[in-house]
Amino acid sequence: MEFVSVTQNLQSDMELVENRVRRAADVDYPVLGEFLQAIVGAGGKRLRPILLLLSAQAYDYDIANLVPAAAGVEMLHTASLVHDDTIDKSQLRRGQPTLNSMFDSGTVILIGDYLFAQSAILAAETMNPRAVSIFASTLADICDGQLQEVFNAHRLDQTREDYNRRIYGKTASLFAGAAEMGAVIGKAPEDAVQNLRGFGADVGMAFQIVDDILDLRSTTASIGKPANLDLRQGTITLPTMLYLAQANGSSGSQSLQRMVDGEDVSDDEYSAVATLIEESGAIDSALAMATEYVAGAIRRLNELPDPMVAGALESFANLALERTS
Amino acid sequence: MEFVSVTQNLQSDMELVENRVRRAADVDYPVLGEFLQAIVGAGGKRLRPILLLLSAQAYDYDIANLVPAAAGVEMLHTASLVHDDTIDKSQLRRGQPTLNSMFDSGTVILIGDYLFAQSAILAAETMNPRAVSIFASTLADICDGQLQEVFNAHRLDQTREDYNRRIYGKTASLFAGAAEMGAVIGKAPEDAVQNLRGFGADVGMAFQIVDDILDLRSTTASIGKPANLDLRQGTITLPTMLYLAQANGSSGSQSLQRMVDGEDVSDDEYSAVATLIEESGAIDSALAMATEYVAGAIRRLNELPDPMVAGALESFANLALERTS
Repeated sequence: MEFVSVTQNLQSDMELVENRVRRAADVDYPVLGEFLQAIVGAGGKRLRPILLLLSAQAYDYDIANLVPAAAGVEMLHTASLVHDDTIDKSQLRRGQPTLNSMFDSGTVILIGDYLFAQSAILAAETMNPRAVSIFASTLADICDGQLQEVFNAHRLDQTREDYNRRIYGKTASLFAGAAEMGAVIGKAPEDAVQNLRGFGADVGMAFQIVDDILDLRSTTASIGKPANLDLRQGTITLPTMLYLAQANGSSGSQSLQRMVDGEDVSDDEYSAVATLIEESGAIDSALAMATEYVAGAIRRLNELPDPMVAGALESFANLALERTS
Repeated sequence: MEFVSVTQNLQSDMELVENRVRRAADVDYPVLGEFLQAIVGAGGKRLRPILLLLSAQAYDYDIANLVPAAAGVEMLHTASLVHDDTIDKSQLRRGQPTLNSMFDSGTVILIGDYLFAQSAILAAETMNPRAVSIFASTLADICDGQLQEVFNAHRLDQTREDYNRRIYGKTASLFAGAAEMGAVIGKAPEDAVQNLRGFGADVGMAFQIVDDILDLRSTTASIGKPANLDLRQGTITLPTMLYLAQANGSSGSQSLQRMVDGEDVSDDEYSAVATLIEESGAIDSALAMATEYVAGAIRRLNELPDPMVAGALESFANLALERTS
C-alpha cells in the first residue's frame, strides 16, 4: 500500500504487530488453535493498527508501547467480527468458513470472549491508563453500535441520525479510538489528540458507508461473503435510505418493507431491489457522502507538524474510497 | 452478613458499589434497560466486590478508586453469567427468567459484550495500570475455564487437574483477581498482594466445589435454577469424579456415560444418579476438600496486620461452606 513506502519503519513495525496478534491468538485447544490462526491471518488489511501507528509517528514514537496497543485494536476488531458472525449466523467471512460454521454457537461466544480478553490484556500492557480507558470506551461504543443495529436497523422510518450513530459505533469508533490511542501513547498535545481522533472517526464513517455500498453492489465472489447480506437481514443502510426518500410507495419500497419484516423473499427479488437502488442514483449520493467524510478527514491533517506523516494519513484516508473504483 | 458488622464502613461503601453497578447497567434501549436492572439487582450476594473492598481494608483504603474496581468485578461476573446462560440456553437464573428466555441469542451475546465493556470501563477508571492488567488477565482466565468446560468437562476420564483448572478459571480466578485488585489499589506490600490473591483463589475453589455439590443435591426451588443441571449437560464435577473412582462399571457409571454422550436420559434417571453419588459418600468427600480450601485460605490470614480485617475475611471464607448446612 502506498502509505507504507512513505513512512519509515511502518512495514517492519507492522511485522511486530502481526507477530503479536498471532501470539495472542495462540491457544492450546485442539482444532480451535488452527482456526484462530487462520482467522487472524486471513487477509485482514490491518487498517486499525496501521492508523494507530501512523497517529503516533509525528510525535513520540514509542514502539514498545505502540505494538501491544496496535495488536490490541486489531484483536478487538477480530473479536467483534467473531461475535458479529455468530449473531448473523454467517458461514463465510473474508472468503473463509467462519468459526460459526465449524463450532456450536456457545463455543463461538466463548472464543469471541477469549479474543476480547486477549485484546484487553494487550491494551493493559501499554501501562497507559488513558489508552486503556479509550480502549474500554471504544468497546462500549462498538456494542452500542451493534445494539442499535439489533433494535433500530430494521425499520424503514429510521432517521439519518439513527444510521450515523449505528455506523459510528460499529466501525468509526474503533478507527477513532485507534488514532486517539496512538496519539495518546505518542504524547501528542491535547488538540492533536482530538484532531487525530476526529480524523479516525471521519475515515471510519467513510469506510462503513463504502462497505454498505459494496454490500449492495457486490457478488459473493467479490467480497468473500454473501451478496446483499444487509437486505437479506433486513438491515437498512444509507443507499437504501436515500432510495426510499424518493421511492415512497413504489414496488421497491414494498419489497423492502417485506425484507425488514422478515418475510420470505426470493434471491431474484433481493437482486432486483439492489438494482433499483443502484439505478436511482442513491448509491452515487451515498458515495458522495463518503467522499465528503474523507475530504473532512484530510482537512484535519493541515494541523499535523510532519508533512510526511500527513501524506501517509491522506493515503490512508483515500483507501476508504479506493475499493469502489 | 456477619463480616459486615465487624468492618467499619463496609455496608455504606457497598451501597456506593451497588449504585455504581446499577448506573453501569443503565442503558437507553426499551425493555432491555429494565431487564438489565433486574439482572444486576436480582439477589446477587456481591461476594466479589466485598472481597475486593476487604482486601484493601488493612492498607490504604482509597474508596474513590476501590468503588469502580469493585463495581467492575461485579459487572464482569454478571457479563460472564449472561454469556454462560446463553451457552447453556438456561431459562432461569437466581429464580428469575434469563435474558436468554426473553431475547434471541444474538441480542444476548451483545448484551453480554456490553456488560463486559462496562466492566472494562469501570476497571479503567481506577487509572491503576496494574489493576487493569489483573482485570484483563482475569477475564482471560474466566474464558479459559469456560473453554475447558466446553472441551474437557464432558469426559468421564478427565483428571483432577482438568477439574481444578476448569473451576479455577470459572470461579476462583475472579475471587483471586478481586482480592489482588483490592490489595494493589490499597498499595499493600507485594507479599501481602500475593497472599490475598491466594486467599481469594482458595475461597473461590471452595465456592465452586460447593456449587457443584449443591447442583447435585438441590431441587429447582431451592437454587433458583433447574436441579442437576450439570448432569443434564453431561458436565462431570468433583463429587461425580469421586463417585466414579469407586463405582467403575456400575449401573451408575453406565448412566453417567450416557449423560456425557448426550443420549436421551429421563428425569428419574438424573435423580437416581444424584442419589447414588450422595449415598456413596462422594459428596461428603468433596465437601471435605472444600473445607480444606477454606482452612488453607484462613491460614493465610495470619500474615495480615489488622486482626479485625482478618476476622472479616475469615467470616467471608466461611460463607463458602455455610450454604451446605
